[in-house]
Amino acid sequence: MTTQEVAATLVQLCSQGKFEEAGEKLYSPDIVSVEPGAPPGQSREAKGIAAVRAKGEWWVANHEVHSSVVEGPLLAGSHFAVTFKLDVTFKPQNRRFQMEEVAVYKVAGGKIVREEFFYEM
Amino acid sequence: MTTQEVAATLVQLCSQGKFEEAGEKLYSPDIVSVEPGAPPGQSREAKGIAAVRAKGEWWVANHEVHSSVVEGPLLAGSHFAVTFKLDVTFKPQNRRFQMEEVAVYKVAGGKIVREEFFYEM
Repeated sequence: MTTQEVAATLVQLCSQGKFEEAGEKLYSPDIVSVEPGAPPGQSREAKGIAAVRAKGEWWVANHEVHSSVVEGPLLAGSHFAVTFKLDVTFKPQNRRFQMEEVAVYKVAGGKIVREEFFYEM
Repeated sequence: MTTQEVAATLVQLCSQGKFEEAGEKLYSPDIVSVEPGAPPGQSREAKGIAAVRAKGEWWVANHEVHSSVVEGPLLAGSHFAVTFKLDVTFKPQNRRFQMEEVAVYKVAGGKIVREEFFYEM
């Protein structure tokens, strides 16, 4: 897939709330996923499909997604950017909140090899 | 200025090739500017308006901009993303090339406090 095709597939699946399917379809085995900050004692970066899948599974298990709006993509060479606007409940605390974030993806060999999220912490 | 106003001003000025004016108008004194990689012995990050201005002045002095296309912004909370597609000549080598990059900006207090560029190195 070209960068444009990867971006279009990601936007389509995530707009339907299919975050895990997007990951299974689009992540490279060597995916690196970067958050703006880390929990105490942990890293900002999850490296490799197993670590990134575990992060995704934790997220899905702990959040109920009420709505998911994805805007973009903006394409530039092997990179693209989208925004996510999520209305979710963090289930362990039954706390509903809205989050808005920019995500930047790097594509190589038709797969996402790096993703980084930008949001207010 | 709101994040949306900062983003609109940046896109407008940079579309006209007015990169330095955009910086003077929009950067916080505490701006941090991050490239994907660093020259040997230097940092990926330029910190503070003096360092970031020097980086910009070097860039402007060494490049002739033939065209500058700015797409976006995509807005998400205090962050926004744009893409730059530049057709430039690196003057010291008289080498003309096209560069495409994603840029992510963080706004606080009506100013850009952080920018990060994503492109193939």
